[in-house]
Amino acid sequence: MGHATDALDTEGPTAAGEPPVGLARARGFAAAVLRGQAQVTFLPSVAAGAVFCAALFAAGWRYGLYALVGTAVGTATARLLGADRDRVTTGLEGFNACLTALCFAVFLGADHLSTALLAIGGCVVVTVVTAAVVQLLGVWGLPSLTLPYCLVASTTTIAAPGFERVWHHGEALASLTRAATGPTAPRPVELAKGFFADFAQIFFMPQWYVGALLLAGLLIAGRRTAAVACLGSAVGIATAWALGAPAAQIADGTMGYNSVLVALALCGVFLPVRAATLTYALVGAATATAVGAALSALFAPSGGHTFTWPFVLTTVVFLAGAKSFPRLAGSGAPAA
Amino acid sequence: MGHATDALDTEGPTAAGEPPVGLARARGFAAAVLRGQAQVTFLPSVAAGAVFCAALFAAGWRYGLYALVGTAVGTATARLLGADRDRVTTGLEGFNACLTALCFAVFLGADHLSTALLAIGGCVVVTVVTAAVVQLLGVWGLPSLTLPYCLVASTTTIAAPGFERVWHHGEALASLTRAATGPTAPRPVELAKGFFADFAQIFFMPQWYVGALLLAGLLIAGRRTAAVACLGSAVGIATAWALGAPAAQIADGTMGYNSVLVALALCGVFLPVRAATLTYALVGAATATAVGAALSALFAPSGGHTFTWPFVLTTVVFLAGAKSFPRLAGSGAPAA
Amino acid sequence: MGHATDALDTEGPTAAGEPPVGLARARGFAAAVLRGQAQVTFLPSVAAGAVFCAALFAAGWRYGLYALVGTAVGTATARLLGADRDRVTTGLEGFNACLTALCFAVFLGADHLSTALLAIGGCVVVTVVTAAVVQLLGVWGLPSLTLPYCLVASTTTIAAPGFERVWHHGEALASLTRAATGPTAPRPVELAKGFFADFAQIFFMPQWYVGALLLAGLLIAGRRTAAVACLGSAVGIATAWALGAPAAQIADGTMGYNSVLVALALCGVFLPVRAATLTYALVGAATATAVGAALSALFAPSGGHTFTWPFVLTTVVFLAGAKSFPRLAGSGAPAA
Repeated sequence: MGHATDALDTEGPTAAGEPPVGLARARGFAAAVLRGQAQVTFLPSVAAGAVFCAALFAAGWRYGLYALVGTAVGTATARLLGADRDRVTTGLEGFNACLTALCFAVFLGADHLSTALLAIGGCVVVTVVTAAVVQLLGVWGLPSLTLPYCLVASTTTIAAPGFERVWHHGEALASLTRAATGPTAPRPVELAKGFFADFAQIFFMPQWYVGALLLAGLLIAGRRTAAVACLGSAVGIATAWALGAPAAQIADGTMGYNSVLVALALCGVFLPVRAATLTYALVGAATATAVGAALSALFAPSGGHTFTWPFVLTTVVFLAGAKSFPRLAGSGAPAA
Repeated sequence: MGHATDALDTEGPTAAGEPPVGLARARGFAAAVLRGQAQVTFLPSVAAGAVFCAALFAAGWRYGLYALVGTAVGTATARLLGADRDRVTTGLEGFNACLTALCFAVFLGADHLSTALLAIGGCVVVTVVTAAVVQLLGVWGLPSLTLPYCLVASTTTIAAPGFERVWHHGEALASLTRAATGPTAPRPVELAKGFFADFAQIFFMPQWYVGALLLAGLLIAGRRTAAVACLGSAVGIATAWALGAPAAQIADGTMGYNSVLVALALCGVFLPVRAATLTYALVGAATATAVGAALSALFAPSGGHTFTWPFVLTTVVFLAGAKSFPRLAGSGAPAA
Repeated sequence: MGHATDALDTEGPTAAGEPPVGLARARGFAAAVLRGQAQVTFLPSVAAGAVFCAALFAAGWRYGLYALVGTAVGTATARLLGADRDRVTTGLEGFNACLTALCFAVFLGADHLSTALLAIGGCVVVTVVTAAVVQLLGVWGLPSLTLPYCLVASTTTIAAPGFERVWHHGEALASLTRAATGPTAPRPVELAKGFFADFAQIFFMPQWYVGALLLAGLLIAGRRTAAVACLGSAVGIATAWALGAPAAQIADGTMGYNSVLVALALCGVFLPVRAATLTYALVGAATATAVGAALSALFAPSGGHTFTWPFVLTTVVFLAGAKSFPRLAGSGAPAA
């Protein structure tokens, strides 16, 4: 992952009144875990991570706990396996585990012991998958984004109905897609809810106020970042409306969460902030909305979910494409 | 794309009686657009492009128009984004857009304003996707073929039923594949129709006379090229018949259009013309027929189409494999 | 493929009483074919290959014959196309053909002439696919494993119902996955049968005694290899039991055959034998069980089978990941 590290908070004990080594290490680890939460939106920021954590606890204490423990397990596994120190410190080994644990809680039921044990196992495996994806995409100088989490999350949720101790939802979810029906004109309040829910759905949460808290976390990291994210959300919603998506799907954030991530990735994180890249990023954000509907239909017969696959695939294509267009390439953070 | 450029027509104004710069540019752009149409079958030829254009107008003026405007939008977008000048001039930035626009017209309905607007958007996005695929496959020295178009076409047609303003066909197409039934012995007239329809289906057209016109375009580009394409069509039909495909699918060209493209790609375009490569190409053409049936069953539950995926996948595998076989490798055009 | 060649048997005539050249060549070819059978479990051993061959004849003479002829066709095709001599001699060009021919016999019906002809064609094509996969994965220094066979087997079995002369099973197999039901507590005899069946299912056979014979072949190649394989089988079964897989699927080997291959690949073949890699390999073996269930649900709507896709995907990810973890990397056989 080549997440930007410019806003990197300082780590560890301050010079005066040095705390004991054990405490310093624990603090450093805690900082890496919080940064891991913030890296879901490309921020290596302890403060943003703390706000994100609060947002998830606001959605439900179980979700906050799964996310926190998951990030910790992923970060610890990477350290144990001897992964690159810098990646661990800046949270790059934590955010895929954060999303993995959270997705298990949401889709398999947070209350089951089986889910908790599986989530820990998933966070160990996703660390290996992250290392693999970094190797594989490194050939093209592309970042791994949330691809490791998408792989583990899709595998687990598609496999789950095959295991009776894991699946507690009765019948499997596999079905053929049907054409969309229902009203396509969202009311203003639905548009407003959808705008914030786009942020919450990055973490699978449908509540608009969770999204508002997450946006607050982005604002802490920087106004420009927050503005780009807001534009992404707006473009996602506008595209969905123009294409005639059901209003309910716009209101619950399903249609726009990938657009937020695509906009951030293509304007500010992996490509420099410019008028050209902003346009490019917003075309990408619009594209992600269509890609999302396609992947939803592709996964439906197997009972799978789209997670952030639309973001990953759209961003990989637009980043690879950008290398051929001199007007876009520039001083973006290189992939690692 | 490493399409052969040996038959490259001269571009722009002739020395005597120089036309004004604007007119020269328009002429150059028109030539690039026509070459873009011809590049669907790997020909950087203005004349072949003009014949192809006529064939599509013969199938229906809307189809001709979509193809022409689509190629123009793709070519213009590539120029705007600063893509490699040579690629634009030889039509390599046009043929994926040509197929994208045409596929939107055929599968979403050419008469709807939504289709026209989407087609323009699709031609912009496919230019970005082309740049990405060139980067990604460039690692192996492989050409991008029609992969960019396949990605955009599959995404859009699978996503379409999810959007009420885009989808005008009632229920979605998702279904489980059933075993083939019906007569498997095509009558001679069906075989003859199928032979020509194989060419027409490259552009989604089922009419044999459209295919005959396209074959005429190939003949203009060279007799050897046309002969290889005819062999590909014949092998595709023979394979489908031997395996027991329904006669109706042979007659409408569904079973053989990928074989035409595979034969061209593996004997003359990316590998040199020799007895060994011709054999190799015809094994590839036969393989593509089976790959086509598999992809058809794979896409069915999501409501997708096979487009030229069988051609792309078969050709990529056979080209990558050829690098290990000294008897096949040689002076084929390198990928770019 | 970077299969270990340390146990390589000597080839060709012995010094005393030299046989005629033709006989020596035939012997060399026969040795390459037997090694090709043994390479299914990464062993370049004539003796192990002979035992494997006996095990398949024990399952049914048709299966033994398909496997033997298939390996021979693949090996001969590779030699004809001028593939690397070392790869041919050590059986690396034979094992994908062995599995391809066998899979055709099992899934299309061994008694049909169409199956026999298709199997020969499949063994020719899989040789090309092997060369392609070696090129494509070579960029990352990854081995091709059984990916070529998986590609050909999936394509053919998914395509088969579309061809009336090929498909003799009535209706196609496409269906939506349902949640697992039935008892999840295997009896001791089921566990024991499953332990051996895990070996047999590598070759699609459900009989425990076929698996026992295959394990005997592994023992001939080395006790350590056999021990790792047994651990893989046990971990696969334990994982399936812990997750609540139906007991019947544990007993017939469906749940554990990929774990056997993953354990072998990650501890001894591509990574060195150590405590750390053994742990890593067993985590991989457990992961493969979940991946297997996911792929089963993914292929179901198209009527496909999982074959050894779970082994291939899990191993590729764990091998790519291992490059980032200094505690795991080491003197494993490099990929070729």
